[in-house]
Amino acid sequence: MNEVYITGIGLTKVSEHWNKSLKHLTYESVQNCLKDCNYKKPDLIVVSNALGGFIQYQESLSNLIAENLSLNKIPNLRIETGEASGASALMVGYMAIASGMFKNVLIIGVEKISDALPHQFISYVSSFLDYEYFVYNGITPASIFAILYKLYLKRYNAKQENIAQFASHDHKMAINVEHAQYRFNLPVERILSSPILVDPIRLFESYPVSDGAASIMLSSKDQVENKDYSVKLEMISASTDVNVLYREDMLLFASLRDSFSQIRKHAKIELKDIDFLEIYDPYTIASPIILESLGLLNKGEGYKLLLEGQHEKDGDLPLNTHGGLKARGHPIGATTLYQVCESVLQLRDKAYNQVPNAYIGLVHSMNNIGDQSFLILLKRL
Amino acid sequence: MNEVYITGIGLTKVSEHWNKSLKHLTYESVQNCLKDCNYKKPDLIVVSNALGGFIQYQESLSNLIAENLSLNKIPNLRIETGEASGASALMVGYMAIASGMFKNVLIIGVEKISDALPHQFISYVSSFLDYEYFVYNGITPASIFAILYKLYLKRYNAKQENIAQFASHDHKMAINVEHAQYRFNLPVERILSSPILVDPIRLFESYPVSDGAASIMLSSKDQVENKDYSVKLEMISASTDVNVLYREDMLLFASLRDSFSQIRKHAKIELKDIDFLEIYDPYTIASPIILESLGLLNKGEGYKLLLEGQHEKDGDLPLNTHGGLKARGHPIGATTLYQVCESVLQLRDKAYNQVPNAYIGLVHSMNNIGDQSFLILLKRL
Repeated sequence: MNEVYITGIGLTKVSEHWNKSLKHLTYESVQNCLKDCNYKKPDLIVVSNALGGFIQYQESLSNLIAENLSLNKIPNLRIETGEASGASALMVGYMAIASGMFKNVLIIGVEKISDALPHQFISYVSSFLDYEYFVYNGITPASIFAILYKLYLKRYNAKQENIAQFASHDHKMAINVEHAQYRFNLPVERILSSPILVDPIRLFESYPVSDGAASIMLSSKDQVENKDYSVKLEMISASTDVNVLYREDMLLFASLRDSFSQIRKHAKIELKDIDFLEIYDPYTIASPIILESLGLLNKGEGYKLLLEGQHEKDGDLPLNTHGGLKARGHPIGATTLYQVCESVLQLRDKAYNQVPNAYIGLVHSMNNIGDQSFLILLKRL
Repeated sequence: MNEVYITGIGLTKVSEHWNKSLKHLTYESVQNCLKDCNYKKPDLIVVSNALGGFIQYQESLSNLIAENLSLNKIPNLRIETGEASGASALMVGYMAIASGMFKNVLIIGVEKISDALPHQFISYVSSFLDYEYFVYNGITPASIFAILYKLYLKRYNAKQENIAQFASHDHKMAINVEHAQYRFNLPVERILSSPILVDPIRLFESYPVSDGAASIMLSSKDQVENKDYSVKLEMISASTDVNVLYREDMLLFASLRDSFSQIRKHAKIELKDIDFLEIYDPYTIASPIILESLGLLNKGEGYKLLLEGQHEKDGDLPLNTHGGLKARGHPIGATTLYQVCESVLQLRDKAYNQVPNAYIGLVHSMNNIGDQSFLILLKRL
């Protein structure tokens, strides 16, 4: 199996891009990526996009994007796996290089949410859930996370101000990050006085409406020109779980636990080896559950390291150093590619909040409420 | 690079399945496939579906299907590349096995069109075209094929009765095929007296409204148990072209010509080596253009072999032996997987219209008007 490297990344600012189309956003990020990898020519294009059908009435997006980039004759395809679309696209790119069939695969994540009205958007993201089971009955992802939140507070006798602290953390990190959407401090008091979204989730405990595009060039070993700039994509693990209402423990993402056991087994990596962690945190309550499911903290103690300051850039386990979904923003199909690009910046020693001696990074991605979990393991060369 | 085999196939009848959901259809085809491959356990699930977002309001379909099949903990993803979604899904499965990362990959194609009203469906399939360029101006895929049809008739001084003969051919083949949607003869006179869809395309020159699901188990060499039942997936080639209005010659699919030159180069296969051909024929006019673009016939002569009877099951190049898109039916995201399953039946000597001594089969798939072309080369073991 051939090794897989990241030889280029391209980011656009996450924002509400009222004056840019899906094509424009993609063009920007791909140009940045091509420049960054010294203009390698891709031989496969993989596009990650989740809601372009609903919002822009545009399916078959990969071919449209390829044509707009004048990248003709090159096979292209589009991946949609709900919120984990970016991770799936990366997995397909990984297989493409690992198989030896392709030398340079361009992965593009793009999403433009601001074209939708808020009530439309909520309806669209709900389509990631089972329609017949959840959506028909008016259940949205936020309402399920609210149930988890209530259960967490009650079962572990936890305080909301400790959970909400995760959003504060994301915002503090984002201040230095040029491509982040919301670059200001957000104290916990401000979060807890914001309107209720779904009780007990406060508005500022949720991800914002974000547009953005991020691109990554995956390459085989012989295509690596600059060792200081390239990063090894060591492994992608993935697992799934039954829907949240059928689980033995709603406060544990078994798919994530399973994904990490694959990393331990095949890459021989333990949590103590990881220099920084990127987690997929659509709502603050997701964060402690993710950290506990990874095995980093005991049940009910998922916010302990945060309170101890261990998630700062010079702490034991730096977390979401570019603002996470809350403050960098969450352009659904592009989000995981942003997470990976940011991790590449860390491993190049070029991050906006640089972690000292960052050699191994772990990126987490998920769909729905841990229904699908992905882990992406990155290593400095 | 590891070799890739097809060890199981599962079909459902193509029809308007008013009483079955996406889940039901999928369940049937996967059960058939699992039985056919002697109950191999997949380690990756790839779902091809094009319009489930629009029609069933269901995205993230691969995870839903996996849960419904109790196939948990197994990574799953969904591919959408417009009408070529099935070919893309197969390509991802091919890379998954070729890389050595997976042993058995379950590819599932499913589409349920009958839940949409006709005007909705036309609008949904138009979303495969560039919205800003085509759809906003009221252009649909059928209207572009109509332009090609007029041009073909005029430039080559061709007769519509010769082009319409391709639909007749599809229907004649489908009579014996249990899973085909329309199993009756359709004489050319009947086609040419059917209502005009888009001038000059007659209603019976177009594909019908079809629901269906087809599944394929791809396996690595060490998983092949029954040599008589397994087929080698020798190669998948793919290429793309600019949109039809920008092309030098609208009556030539350069992406297909390019795809076939890859097959010639890498698999050392010429047209004379192929024992049967499956083409993606949404409208009758597509057929001669495809056959000419492949290099099988000169420009303007694409219907010559048909008139000579060479596309019959015992002819020089048997064509669409299970009824093609017109008579087997065209459940968009599942169609290419139907084509491949039918080709596997040919190579197992179990086809409904068996081609004598069928050893090498070629399957063609495309998106839009040849914007993307795929060729899938299959060999008997």
